[in-house]
Amino acid sequence: MRADAQRNVDAIAAAAADCLSRDPEASVADIAKAAGVGRVTLYGHFPSRAELVDAAVARAITDGHAVLDAVDLDGDPRAALARLVDASWELVNRFRSLLLAAQRTLPPGRIQELHQEPADRMRRLLERGRAEGVFRTDLPTSWLITTMQNVMHGAADEINADRLKSADAARYISTTVLAALTPPGHRVP
Amino acid sequence: MRADAQRNVDAIAAAAADCLSRDPEASVADIAKAAGVGRVTLYGHFPSRAELVDAAVARAITDGHAVLDAVDLDGDPRAALARLVDASWELVNRFRSLLLAAQRTLPPGRIQELHQEPADRMRRLLERGRAEGVFRTDLPTSWLITTMQNVMHGAADEINADRLKSADAARYISTTVLAALTPPGHRVP
Repeated sequence: MRADAQRNVDAIAAAAADCLSRDPEASVADIAKAAGVGRVTLYGHFPSRAELVDAAVARAITDGHAVLDAVDLDGDPRAALARLVDASWELVNRFRSLLLAAQRTLPPGRIQELHQEPADRMRRLLERGRAEGVFRTDLPTSWLITTMQNVMHGAADEINADRLKSADAARYISTTVLAALTPPGHRVP
Repeated sequence: MRADAQRNVDAIAAAAADCLSRDPEASVADIAKAAGVGRVTLYGHFPSRAELVDAAVARAITDGHAVLDAVDLDGDPRAALARLVDASWELVNRFRSLLLAAQRTLPPGRIQELHQEPADRMRRLLERGRAEGVFRTDLPTSWLITTMQNVMHGAADEINADRLKSADAARYISTTVLAALTPPGHRVP
């Protein structure tokens, strides 16, 4: 791809992430305008709304790497997990309107596929905690990661529906997740 | 509404629940055909796809009451909850393709609103378990119910995406939910 074409693709993905995280129904015309490109150029790179939403989610997740990189994952795995979940939730909450657009547009499993990198961070920490005996080993790591994502994405839906306050969500999520990860026979923190 | 019109509405809702639980993209034409009515009649009762999906979900949930009514909710609240979650999961799993259609079509929070009746069953049991000291009281009941729904609906998504086996899901779900409900300081069952 030529450099100017790549710049357009980047600008469109950034504009899509921005517009859709304010309004899940943002139109292709709005996104083209925010990216400073014409609709024909936009459709040339992203022929369908699904491709545009996909690129926006990928972009939002890439932008989130810096936030997750700053999380200290050393020390007690439970405390480290609480920090990672808090930082992850901050990102999910910021992009919850984009998540809604993705749930409406992308095929089953695609949202999880796009979360490969954040899931890998969770996985490494979970595996350390399992090796140290503080996280359960009777359920697969993949299921535990899915559960954490579902609890966070479900909280985002509840906020979108005005049934949960943003201010309460972080504590509810980390409390619930830490209990769900506790090995059978061990005490819930 | 006249009796024949009511019969048409019922037949359309039942056909929609049936068609969408086999194919989330089932067309209005397919549903009209399965209901034995013309498209004009169908559109007369359900002007939009969203209204049709809404009626299908409501119908599936109503049909599920009989399954949930058969669950013994007496005795140890944890064992009763495991039975209720197993039966609920059986229903969610049976209708997971309809759930996908609903996630794509209905406004935020509407799926939860439609689950009022099954949520109330969960709530009564949770409240008994909280009173008996076996379920946590440091998080609101509404959040605990949301969490159970998110874990089940998330498992359905995973199966839709071929990332989880139906045969494993029931055990993963009840194990996870029972841990999440355990009060701080108590041992996970």
